[in-house]
Amino acid sequence: MKRTGKTMEKLSYVGKSMPRKDAEIKAVGSARYAADRDFAGMLYAAAVRSPRPHIRIDGISDAKARKVPGYAALVTYKDIKGVNKWPVVMQDYPFLPEKEARFAGETVALVVAASEKAARRAAALVELRYKELPFVEDPLEALEKGAPRVHGEDNVFSTYRIKNGSVDEAFRKAAYTVEGEFSTNYQVHAYLETQGAIAVPEPGGGMTVHSTTQCPFYVIDAVAAALAQPYHKIKILQTVTGGGFGGKEDVPALVASHAAICAAKVGRPVRLIYGRKEDFQSMSKRHPGWARVAYAADKSGRITACRVKYVLDGGAYSTLSPIVLWRGTVHAAGPYKVPNVDIRTYAAATNKVPCGAFRGFGQPQISFAQESLIDELAAKVGMDPLKFRLKNLLKPGDRTVTGQKLNSSCGLAEIAQAVRRRSGWDRKWKSPSVKGDVASGIGFSVAYYGVGLGAGGRYLDRAGAMVNIYKDSSVGVSVGNTEMGQGALTVLAQIAAETLNAPYAAVRVEEVDSSKVPDSGPTVASRTTLMSGNAIIDAATPLRERIFKTAYDLLLAEGADASLPMVAANGVFRMGAKSVEFKKVVSGCWSRRLKMCEQGWYTAPRTSFKNEDGQGDAYVIYSYSADAAEVDVDLRTGVLKVRKVWAAYDVGRIVNPGLAMGQAQGGILQGMSWAVYENLVYKNGIMVNPNFTDYVIATTADKPEYDITFIEKPYAEGPYKAKGMGEVPLIGVAPAVANAVRNACGARVRSVPLLPEKIWKEIRKG
Amino acid sequence: MKRTGKTMEKLSYVGKSMPRKDAEIKAVGSARYAADRDFAGMLYAAAVRSPRPHIRIDGISDAKARKVPGYAALVTYKDIKGVNKWPVVMQDYPFLPEKEARFAGETVALVVAASEKAARRAAALVELRYKELPFVEDPLEALEKGAPRVHGEDNVFSTYRIKNGSVDEAFRKAAYTVEGEFSTNYQVHAYLETQGAIAVPEPGGGMTVHSTTQCPFYVIDAVAAALAQPYHKIKILQTVTGGGFGGKEDVPALVASHAAICAAKVGRPVRLIYGRKEDFQSMSKRHPGWARVAYAADKSGRITACRVKYVLDGGAYSTLSPIVLWRGTVHAAGPYKVPNVDIRTYAAATNKVPCGAFRGFGQPQISFAQESLIDELAAKVGMDPLKFRLKNLLKPGDRTVTGQKLNSSCGLAEIAQAVRRRSGWDRKWKSPSVKGDVASGIGFSVAYYGVGLGAGGRYLDRAGAMVNIYKDSSVGVSVGNTEMGQGALTVLAQIAAETLNAPYAAVRVEEVDSSKVPDSGPTVASRTTLMSGNAIIDAATPLRERIFKTAYDLLLAEGADASLPMVAANGVFRMGAKSVEFKKVVSGCWSRRLKMCEQGWYTAPRTSFKNEDGQGDAYVIYSYSADAAEVDVDLRTGVLKVRKVWAAYDVGRIVNPGLAMGQAQGGILQGMSWAVYENLVYKNGIMVNPNFTDYVIATTADKPEYDITFIEKPYAEGPYKAKGMGEVPLIGVAPAVANAVRNACGARVRSVPLLPEKIWKEIRKG
Repeated sequence: MKRTGKTMEKLSYVGKSMPRKDAEIKAVGSARYAADRDFAGMLYAAAVRSPRPHIRIDGISDAKARKVPGYAALVTYKDIKGVNKWPVVMQDYPFLPEKEARFAGETVALVVAASEKAARRAAALVELRYKELPFVEDPLEALEKGAPRVHGEDNVFSTYRIKNGSVDEAFRKAAYTVEGEFSTNYQVHAYLETQGAIAVPEPGGGMTVHSTTQCPFYVIDAVAAALAQPYHKIKILQTVTGGGFGGKEDVPALVASHAAICAAKVGRPVRLIYGRKEDFQSMSKRHPGWARVAYAADKSGRITACRVKYVLDGGAYSTLSPIVLWRGTVHAAGPYKVPNVDIRTYAAATNKVPCGAFRGFGQPQISFAQESLIDELAAKVGMDPLKFRLKNLLKPGDRTVTGQKLNSSCGLAEIAQAVRRRSGWDRKWKSPSVKGDVASGIGFSVAYYGVGLGAGGRYLDRAGAMVNIYKDSSVGVSVGNTEMGQGALTVLAQIAAETLNAPYAAVRVEEVDSSKVPDSGPTVASRTTLMSGNAIIDAATPLRERIFKTAYDLLLAEGADASLPMVAANGVFRMGAKSVEFKKVVSGCWSRRLKMCEQGWYTAPRTSFKNEDGQGDAYVIYSYSADAAEVDVDLRTGVLKVRKVWAAYDVGRIVNPGLAMGQAQGGILQGMSWAVYENLVYKNGIMVNPNFTDYVIATTADKPEYDITFIEKPYAEGPYKAKGMGEVPLIGVAPAVANAVRNACGARVRSVPLLPEKIWKEIRKG
Repeated sequence: MKRTGKTMEKLSYVGKSMPRKDAEIKAVGSARYAADRDFAGMLYAAAVRSPRPHIRIDGISDAKARKVPGYAALVTYKDIKGVNKWPVVMQDYPFLPEKEARFAGETVALVVAASEKAARRAAALVELRYKELPFVEDPLEALEKGAPRVHGEDNVFSTYRIKNGSVDEAFRKAAYTVEGEFSTNYQVHAYLETQGAIAVPEPGGGMTVHSTTQCPFYVIDAVAAALAQPYHKIKILQTVTGGGFGGKEDVPALVASHAAICAAKVGRPVRLIYGRKEDFQSMSKRHPGWARVAYAADKSGRITACRVKYVLDGGAYSTLSPIVLWRGTVHAAGPYKVPNVDIRTYAAATNKVPCGAFRGFGQPQISFAQESLIDELAAKVGMDPLKFRLKNLLKPGDRTVTGQKLNSSCGLAEIAQAVRRRSGWDRKWKSPSVKGDVASGIGFSVAYYGVGLGAGGRYLDRAGAMVNIYKDSSVGVSVGNTEMGQGALTVLAQIAAETLNAPYAAVRVEEVDSSKVPDSGPTVASRTTLMSGNAIIDAATPLRERIFKTAYDLLLAEGADASLPMVAANGVFRMGAKSVEFKKVVSGCWSRRLKMCEQGWYTAPRTSFKNEDGQGDAYVIYSYSADAAEVDVDLRTGVLKVRKVWAAYDVGRIVNPGLAMGQAQGGILQGMSWAVYENLVYKNGIMVNPNFTDYVIATTADKPEYDITFIEKPYAEGPYKAKGMGEVPLIGVAPAVANAVRNACGARVRSVPLLPEKIWKEIRKG
């Protein structure tokens, strides 16, 4: 790994690979995930699911289920005390359906019993009387007139348009144009831990919910709505979360609400943990995407226009589709200077599993299309595709397609150059090789990613943090964003320790307790370091002042020379030869009865983007990636092997290089897995391969060699100049691989995953 | 009930008898006390106790105990990872004894088993090999040379002296002098719920402790010390607490530490709940007190001097004795202007149960002595004792015996006059009656009580509070002081609602979670309303500003006339005819992404008192009581019946009249019970009557008629001008009753309880 960038001030912890705070509990196996949590008197819930893609519910009977020993209750929509609408973006998804179920696997009812086994057995014995209704599987068909209705009049959950300049004219005048249709399939989050929650009734109508979730505040919204209780009676405790990737953004709120509805009915703790199959069947996925993209360029090779039609397959309920689509819309033309654009996008309703958040959030699908097509445009212009990109990339001072001026922290050209240099691009791209039956080639892509929620979630882009310094100088930090494996507890502890000049070991960041910090929005959109980090700094700043002043007084009291500066580093305060440790300073603060606990708050700057004209600042800042993928293609079989990926990122300051490397490698591998392997299949509205035997994901055996570079363009508004990096490493992988396949063997596959049969077919065509 | 005082501003909730926040859960029985809390996999602990008052421990064997089915472990001092010293004031009390046990009932070891029954059976089978050592039972004997040693060289835990003026000279010159020896017995807290805790091990060495306690921050101190873990890994959750009265000040820390040491050893949750007998035997009590007091007065009936020697029986370990003694010392001369004082006080070590905090905290014992003697002095002077007091009482501008000038909020003379008037004192006192064998009389007393910890706990007199306004406008308030039945949750909710202009129903104050607010000191010394109330106001004030500004904006946006003032009351904001509700205003605040959660902090003003010379401001403010008790004495048997008590208090603003009345009535009844009935007996170092059959407390059948008046002298520094009132109603009851007995039948009993045989004996003497 290489790190370059502007020289920044020397810090004690930020910028260093501090050890993971959760390493021990995860290594020794003492971490308590949702399924590890037992409560006295706890019962178990299991879901009764719709067997067909679209049904009218005529009756639910537990006559047979009641005979299962330990059977406790059948729970249906009638048991919901609140409004039967899960509060996500739109309110079309009932907690439990009343008349209709709209996809195979939808929870129709729940049973509660004395053991998980009994609950599952009883659920299987619940009799559902229903009538099958017409259904639609294909999102493009769903948008046609006369298609079976899933949502509203037209099966459109949401639609956006970004229009700027004169696209038609630009295409008429263009020296070169390209157009293509592209599609991408589902991606399953494949987190190690499935969905689950335990709801524990509290005296007086309250409920404590233990939830594996990225977004405890979505959970409290849903549980409070389902139970019709005020928020101050509901407490959401995030359990140690075994992976999220977006899959634990919205859906845990539904799972937790189901557990809470059950618990409220039976008056005892209820645990609801999903099996892997039902997790596949019913939980959110990366949206399948379809796009028709066209670019125009002038004689010199400058992009002059881009036209996009982009459709996401939203599934049966809208959930997060409107926001996923919005992000894809804003980024659809790619990180280029494009004077004329016309982007139209649609989230379509189908009778399949509702799709939602997945690392990249609507961008990877359109990025695959757009970056594949940029290679084709470069080919038409007759340029090396990397050099073509360099000519057109967004640079500081340029404006995006929404008219947003990039004022600072834009290292796109530098990361592209870094990948070019380190990968030996100039040489390799010109001379793809064939050895025996194996063709090798290299492909390139760039991507950008608006950090945080931006204008699409502008009311949510705020976060709180509590910093509590105990008498023994240990520091408790509570935030509203979650650890889900990405290292948030560690990075945030570094930021807290840095700001307070506390020893790193003294700081502990807790899993979220919704009653300790205010609604901090979701843990998504690579926003945690930025938002919670800044909230921690806000909370820690007055504490820092008290600590530094007390340290100064203590040093003077010990005879330090006041003409010397006080230097604070690594938990020690020094003035000349005199020094005092954090522990003693904190003790001094407590003796003075100083306030040692603060709530912090951070709100992202306002974004000016408006949906009406699709113009304005969409996000406050962007992260950037450049990827080069080197692949081998077996010309006989079409089997593709990604050998090495060179990647460079500008994500601002790197708070923890080791964890950043983990994010980078994980993002690349997950992007490659989606690009090459993952293939969820629906047939007649039923998911065919809801398991890890038939649904293939990349394993460590498949992982490419990595060469990763960080170019740290400081972001003034970020905590210690950081931006965000959770998602950007995934986005550009698929098009880089697809472009490499093309470079290796001439096959242009326009559909992800790049299955051998698709490549083979293109090779044969070529 | 009557309330008078300076007219104060009209408020929405403060000053009104708002319903108790915990009424429902307590009425329907859903409140979860410590013994109601179950955890999966929980084991049960029971204590092995010393059978004798002083032993050398030669061995502990669980050979027989191991045979009890479900037996899990023997836990001794060897299992303590931290330092084996319970951190209270001094550190003489080991968590578990290593070589010696110093009182009968002391926990020597613990056993852990699968059920409470098995744990108790196994504990009874643990074999303790020991040698009996000499012991001392009487505190005055303990202070003599050659007494068996319990503590240090001299069996003195602590000693104080307050000296001012020339006492010897004043006595020489006095027109009248009186002197007397007085003693008081133990008082058992007799809370409905015995001591108990559940310790739940957390991954990574942490521990969550559910504790019935007044002082969660004493518990965290002890548990962190016992486990040698940083505070940020320890969480103390106060359970609904069934009575405290001081008995849950220090000792829950020991019980919780025992549970935590057990839980750390077995790696599972451990519950330790005391039976009533062991609670009697081992838990703190009101100190038995002994005092020799002398007063001098001049010809005109002005008190000129006071000499006091005051000894408290501390029991086997110091625990809170130094602070209890300190409070008694400061108040020992009574609420009078006394120019010359010499007060010497001692806390003595004996081989009996360690005594600690009890409502009144070292004052009732000395108040009994000093107020009995004031009556005798008045008699010598030849004055009505009430009028004699009025002549000598502290008034605003006067100085206490420590030289503290009473600047404000001192309604002592007014409450004395109120009781005089309402009780018909002038007539009654002059003409005690005898009807048949029953003599009736009336007695009077006054008391003052320094609110908060004062100089005796000056580093602890600070408190935090968190106010968190959720999106739905419900308000969660966390504080560091506890509800133990006195109504803190309610009073603090009123203060929060008042400050925010939130509907009272929208506010919830939670039981304490030590990880949510910083160390707020103990819930003692009538300090909760003052300290936590002010901390809540501190947290709520910036929130109030945001809310009021948003309400103003919303009203203007709705067309309100800006020339009119905005009036906020009862959760509504009005400007002329336009109004907007709190809920809508909060929603507006969230839309603006305003910070809706704050930590507040309050530190009491510094107190200047120094132990070196016994001079300076001892407390920041005082509450005052005046009591008149009317009694019947059966002249044949000495049986005493307290018929009616008139009381008046100056405790500043009354936040909740209904709850204040509860505090007053409860304090009077508990004070009367101690004065008349409660008689714990030790014989040969063993407690003879550790149960409610043989230890008699007053019941509702014994309760006197009450006539209670509040005279609200506003305290500028208090929350909405309140002081504190938990303890002052108890203090003056015993001397008022003793003085009434004297008035009725001439018997001067100098020892509490005023048992029939003691009265009978004095009647016979007279």
